[in-house]
Amino acid sequence: MGEALRVGIAGLGTVGASVVRVLTEKADELARQCGRPIEVVAVSARDRSRDRGIDVSGARWFDDPVELAKADGIDVVVELVGGSEGSARACVKAGLEAGRHVVTANKALLARHGLALAELAEKKGVLLNYEAAVAGGIPVIKTMRESMAGNTVSRVFGILNGTCNYMLTRMEAEGLSFEACLADAQRLGYAEADPTADVEGHDTAHKLAILTSLAFGTKIAPDDIYIEGISNISQADIRAAAELGYRIKLLGVAQRTESGIEQRVHPTMVPTASVIAQVHGVTNAVAIETDILGELLLSGPGAGGNATASAVIGDLADIAKSSPGFQHGPVFGRPVKELAPCRKAKMRAHAGGYFIRLTVHDRIGVIAAIAKRMADNEISLESIVQHATDKDTADRKTVILVTHETTEAAVRKAVDGITKDGHLIDKAQVIRIERAA
Amino acid sequence: MGEALRVGIAGLGTVGASVVRVLTEKADELARQCGRPIEVVAVSARDRSRDRGIDVSGARWFDDPVELAKADGIDVVVELVGGSEGSARACVKAGLEAGRHVVTANKALLARHGLALAELAEKKGVLLNYEAAVAGGIPVIKTMRESMAGNTVSRVFGILNGTCNYMLTRMEAEGLSFEACLADAQRLGYAEADPTADVEGHDTAHKLAILTSLAFGTKIAPDDIYIEGISNISQADIRAAAELGYRIKLLGVAQRTESGIEQRVHPTMVPTASVIAQVHGVTNAVAIETDILGELLLSGPGAGGNATASAVIGDLADIAKSSPGFQHGPVFGRPVKELAPCRKAKMRAHAGGYFIRLTVHDRIGVIAAIAKRMADNEISLESIVQHATDKDTADRKTVILVTHETTEAAVRKAVDGITKDGHLIDKAQVIRIERAA
Repeated sequence: MGEALRVGIAGLGTVGASVVRVLTEKADELARQCGRPIEVVAVSARDRSRDRGIDVSGARWFDDPVELAKADGIDVVVELVGGSEGSARACVKAGLEAGRHVVTANKALLARHGLALAELAEKKGVLLNYEAAVAGGIPVIKTMRESMAGNTVSRVFGILNGTCNYMLTRMEAEGLSFEACLADAQRLGYAEADPTADVEGHDTAHKLAILTSLAFGTKIAPDDIYIEGISNISQADIRAAAELGYRIKLLGVAQRTESGIEQRVHPTMVPTASVIAQVHGVTNAVAIETDILGELLLSGPGAGGNATASAVIGDLADIAKSSPGFQHGPVFGRPVKELAPCRKAKMRAHAGGYFIRLTVHDRIGVIAAIAKRMADNEISLESIVQHATDKDTADRKTVILVTHETTEAAVRKAVDGITKDGHLIDKAQVIRIERAA
Repeated sequence: MGEALRVGIAGLGTVGASVVRVLTEKADELARQCGRPIEVVAVSARDRSRDRGIDVSGARWFDDPVELAKADGIDVVVELVGGSEGSARACVKAGLEAGRHVVTANKALLARHGLALAELAEKKGVLLNYEAAVAGGIPVIKTMRESMAGNTVSRVFGILNGTCNYMLTRMEAEGLSFEACLADAQRLGYAEADPTADVEGHDTAHKLAILTSLAFGTKIAPDDIYIEGISNISQADIRAAAELGYRIKLLGVAQRTESGIEQRVHPTMVPTASVIAQVHGVTNAVAIETDILGELLLSGPGAGGNATASAVIGDLADIAKSSPGFQHGPVFGRPVKELAPCRKAKMRAHAGGYFIRLTVHDRIGVIAAIAKRMADNEISLESIVQHATDKDTADRKTVILVTHETTEAAVRKAVDGITKDGHLIDKAQVIRIERAA
């Protein structure tokens, strides 16, 4: 049995407490698997007196996570503070600068400062592991960074936010409005008091930025991501989707196209019979398409103390098994200096099918006018139907269009034209359709 | 850039040729990711003159894979010969004995001799990697061996044979009989001339034996596996399953129970709405349930030259990234001497729901007699229906039973009783139902 791997944990929220609990309860088993014990020798949190249901009396206490990261006698710093700036960033930086390995679950930090931190890790010859930062317990980082060596990725997409998937699942199953569903999700603890980061797609975008870099060997570019959340998804969309053989999911999608790398987060229609359409509730899923392997799909719990702790502990075990000086490959799959700039594809160039829901005045010639706007923009229609909804009145009707593959630019121009024609009562609803097996 | 990793490849069939092709075409990219080149310096196959669409003129040729494994100047031996004995076994053994890392895709070899080979690898301090041996391109070995550190597995199950899943998918979609479907699958190259290993479940069993060891930290025990193939699955079963909300899949299941470890391969009814039920055609899938992570599902291509080559190359990249003396953890997750004996659970103790299809004489009292046999064995029924099929005649009717959770022993006794009662025209068909999310 080798010497213990000495771990300092910054942040004792739900995930931090789970990490401590599992490292304690599974200490013997982990030592057997890693050939050496993993010991929590230091912890840091805001409130020392709080009862977290764990015993950290044997560990040194630090009020300041940065002090923990710099303290002697620590081999690995686990950062579970959260947030892209402030003490989380300072803690990771201090840990790397002190020559310690770092494990973090912090997607916002990596999306914003991942490249600088990876460069620092390379310079110091230490590991920066972050399996828990994307899709919780699903081993997507290890899969992309290690198992897919030699594969050229064409597309990676996934359900990366449990709150949104939970809400969309309940909205579909129970016929709830977005607002009613959100209120209930907040009451049950599935959504935060300020749900913006989740429901408006920012959390998904942070995770996608990391996956994009791993997929295409490009520098992380979170500001290049097109982002739309789920707050304007209505029952009318969900029911129309179901009738057309689709289900609505908030996806993050990164795709190599002729005009560059597309990174987009938006509500998406996926075929009901696809595997990803069966991913319900807080479960996450990631699909990766490559030239050699083909399509791989991973699904599992995307959040929660234990699932996230499992990923953190997998990262710690990898470090424990490493002999000194071992490099588990570069942080984002390639040395930072070899990561290519992420050439951004214009969202207007996006090619795909579209679902368009229009609420129109019931006048003669409306459908003809809509169809003409589509034809003028060379959009080929799979279907155009006047769709009965319970909001219909004598004057108010719903028209649903599904297009064959076209471009975002064409759809926007067509919808602008229809809007100018004066037939619309409400803003047009446009939802992209995504291929999925 | 470090020194090249020198690879010798034994076996140049579909997978071997794909490995050589990808290592050649992606040489620069792999070198960037691994920090050193991966070079094929030696190859071995039966027929030197055959055109495989690859250029191996720069590699040393060996007629005998064992000679390749022993030759100087090789760091890693890739064994793609196949078969649990003969030159495949000798080649792996010789490679390990010579102190070389070994990568193999050979499930039969590992199921039979994995422990002895792992012991040899431990003794020599080299890696024995085998991602390609189970579920082709799906990184299930890496996930279980590395990502799930600290997790206690309760059940692992999956679709591990592409031929069977392809056949069951087509039988359901096209209404084909097993025999017609097999003939067509053979014609199209999805089934071998002698399909026994696939359709009778032996290939699935080899893979399951490996997963069981990784899941439960037990010695590999292929002879403890209960095996039933798909050759007696009929359209009557598939259609009844669909009506009841199930789909039939050949699953390998390993489960920790109070009486020991259950290992079983058999046709299984899974809920149509479950994720695993959407896994169609040659695609494989593995679900793993643990105490910390929860349930993880991985699906992807389970066979084919490229998908399997992707797994082999992932294993090679791991070795290339390892510094000398690094141990990527033990071969089966724990050192061989710490693997527990696999305490076999008796199949008769298996607990679960059952689907039972009976072809009976249409006489008064038959259903009552069947129901009594069930009650006598304390089997609670979810449903018992006389089921119309196109084989019904004035005297011949079909009765379908679905049980609540009961035991294999109870079901066997009840079916024996019904058989003795003399009501059956054909042998009773019994298909186990498996929980799946």
